[in-house]
Amino acid sequence: MGRVYNFSAGPSMLPLEVLQQAQAELTDFNGTGMSITEMSHRSKAYMEVNAEAESLLRELMEIPDSYHVIFVQGGASQQFAAVPLNLLGKNNKADYIATGNFAAKAIEEAQRYGDIHIAASSKAEKYTYVPKTFNFRKDAAYVHMTDNNTIFGTKFTSVPDTGGVEIVNDMSSNILSEVMDVSKYGVIYAGAQKNIAPAGATIVIAKKSLVDNPENVMAACPTMLKWSTQVASDGNSLYNTPPCFSVYMAMLVFRYLKKIGGVPAMQKLNYEKANILYDYLDESKMFSSPVAKEDRSIMNIPFVTGNDELNAKFIKEAAQNGLVTLAGHKIVGGMRASIYNAMPVEGVKALVEFMKKFELANK
Amino acid sequence: MGRVYNFSAGPSMLPLEVLQQAQAELTDFNGTGMSITEMSHRSKAYMEVNAEAESLLRELMEIPDSYHVIFVQGGASQQFAAVPLNLLGKNNKADYIATGNFAAKAIEEAQRYGDIHIAASSKAEKYTYVPKTFNFRKDAAYVHMTDNNTIFGTKFTSVPDTGGVEIVNDMSSNILSEVMDVSKYGVIYAGAQKNIAPAGATIVIAKKSLVDNPENVMAACPTMLKWSTQVASDGNSLYNTPPCFSVYMAMLVFRYLKKIGGVPAMQKLNYEKANILYDYLDESKMFSSPVAKEDRSIMNIPFVTGNDELNAKFIKEAAQNGLVTLAGHKIVGGMRASIYNAMPVEGVKALVEFMKKFELANK
Repeated sequence: MGRVYNFSAGPSMLPLEVLQQAQAELTDFNGTGMSITEMSHRSKAYMEVNAEAESLLRELMEIPDSYHVIFVQGGASQQFAAVPLNLLGKNNKADYIATGNFAAKAIEEAQRYGDIHIAASSKAEKYTYVPKTFNFRKDAAYVHMTDNNTIFGTKFTSVPDTGGVEIVNDMSSNILSEVMDVSKYGVIYAGAQKNIAPAGATIVIAKKSLVDNPENVMAACPTMLKWSTQVASDGNSLYNTPPCFSVYMAMLVFRYLKKIGGVPAMQKLNYEKANILYDYLDESKMFSSPVAKEDRSIMNIPFVTGNDELNAKFIKEAAQNGLVTLAGHKIVGGMRASIYNAMPVEGVKALVEFMKKFELANK
Repeated sequence: MGRVYNFSAGPSMLPLEVLQQAQAELTDFNGTGMSITEMSHRSKAYMEVNAEAESLLRELMEIPDSYHVIFVQGGASQQFAAVPLNLLGKNNKADYIATGNFAAKAIEEAQRYGDIHIAASSKAEKYTYVPKTFNFRKDAAYVHMTDNNTIFGTKFTSVPDTGGVEIVNDMSSNILSEVMDVSKYGVIYAGAQKNIAPAGATIVIAKKSLVDNPENVMAACPTMLKWSTQVASDGNSLYNTPPCFSVYMAMLVFRYLKKIGGVPAMQKLNYEKANILYDYLDESKMFSSPVAKEDRSIMNIPFVTGNDELNAKFIKEAAQNGLVTLAGHKIVGGMRASIYNAMPVEGVKALVEFMKKFELANK
């Protein structure tokens, strides 16, 4: 089979030219006579990769110097524990916004470590919208939010006003998808496997003032979960062996993103892709979006027919046409098209063309 | 440059044919039209990879059914915390054997969680031997040992008699290098990046009776560090997105190892390689091994000339001859040849030939 359009929610598509470069140099990286996967993480060649990945991410996201950028392991799920363990040392209170499945998991984990208050929740409406009003506590150590809701397909369209309390933002499913003002957040974290690189690396962008204050860290925090551990290792995430291949692939993806015009250019493409699909969903008589219009994600687009048999038929026939991994998450059913940065406009056009044909053939 | 002989202590060499297979299918895995790095970890194609990796490891190491095998992230360093967090819930006492730098790190981390007793230590002799007598506590929850000492080049040659206390063994630098009786240990853990696969995956092999008893787990243990979390995810390490590429590469390396005759065949090759180098070190007038003969590692072989300038000259000229990453760890200086499973016999022969020429030219 040729390359397919892969609508997986993560791990997900990577730019083909990035994969091809990795392929070309997989047995000999940069004339070293060895693979990037075989190389000591303390070698000059790898340390340069690590440094370039960080430097390109800083450039692409315009990350201020007052922030640390570290690469860790374990995914966002591990950060669900790391966030309270790194921030609730002095003040045991944190507020969370419940906007979906991963937000709920973050809450559940944080409740094991601190006094957690739900400042707003859209759970009663099956997470189909993002709350606009919040009941924040003034003395919370931080407010946690999940920027984009991978499973239910919503996103925040503005930054909540917390009255000065630092915000911790899980951007796993939309980092680098559109221009964001990093300075509005105390901490941003994201697993790599949706918009950045193969699974294995997790990015933490955190205010130095938060990380460098040891009083913020809870006594129980494992050394490997302490953000300051990676910062202390010469500031370069090399305390122990990092997920070298994922970091290298992230570097290649960052180079690619810079080449095509950076985050502003990517944002334009992402809205173009999302609009093609939403416009069709809004006019279709068969397919519809279950999500509040004003809160629609540009990364994850669930859609339904209201008929389970028809959904199954659609998913099967789409796959036969090279449009794969369109089944919705098991929690919600239906379909979901995840159209991250690496999904080309052509992929979304092909999907909509197929949906039109399917609608005609099955009405 | 052509492929070099890479004596890195980790990440380290991989079998060339494994790298070539990964290279060939990097943009289209198994006819799926996508890369293994782009694939949902819940897809049939990836779940088969995950299952085959586990099943081959069970076969190669003859792991009894009474053990769980899980793939996690964070390296052995993360297990330094996970071990006490998973095992000291009921009984807060553990005994540790101090045989090197990583053993010392494991001890330091465990001391943050429990009452840790050093049952034996070779620190006073710069870890150049492995203790033969131990002062174990009968009521310890476990005894921790580090099977092979990556930095100083020693290894255990027999299993300590703990009087029935479960042993936790860090096998990061010698897993699969020779036949081992898994049933003698309560838990075995190992980072992948030395003998198995690119950095990112960590293997935990643990008695079901230890993992399945929730009383063993400390209240502070993060969900992602709990071994039972990965077991509970259908028993297949898919609680969250695993380090898919590393697990896939592990599967390819396990297939390769099985093909060449499994661990017994590998053991024969490893002793052959180590003996070629030790025999020369014992006869050389320039180079020598600083390690007690009876405790010599077959994976990591430090050697010295006693002259820092000569060491530097050797490392430089060896690299010019395609024998790279021979500098000793910064803690000990001198040289170190790490000759893990993927290092061919030819690589060790080439090293010894070069050492002989160097000794002649510089005497």
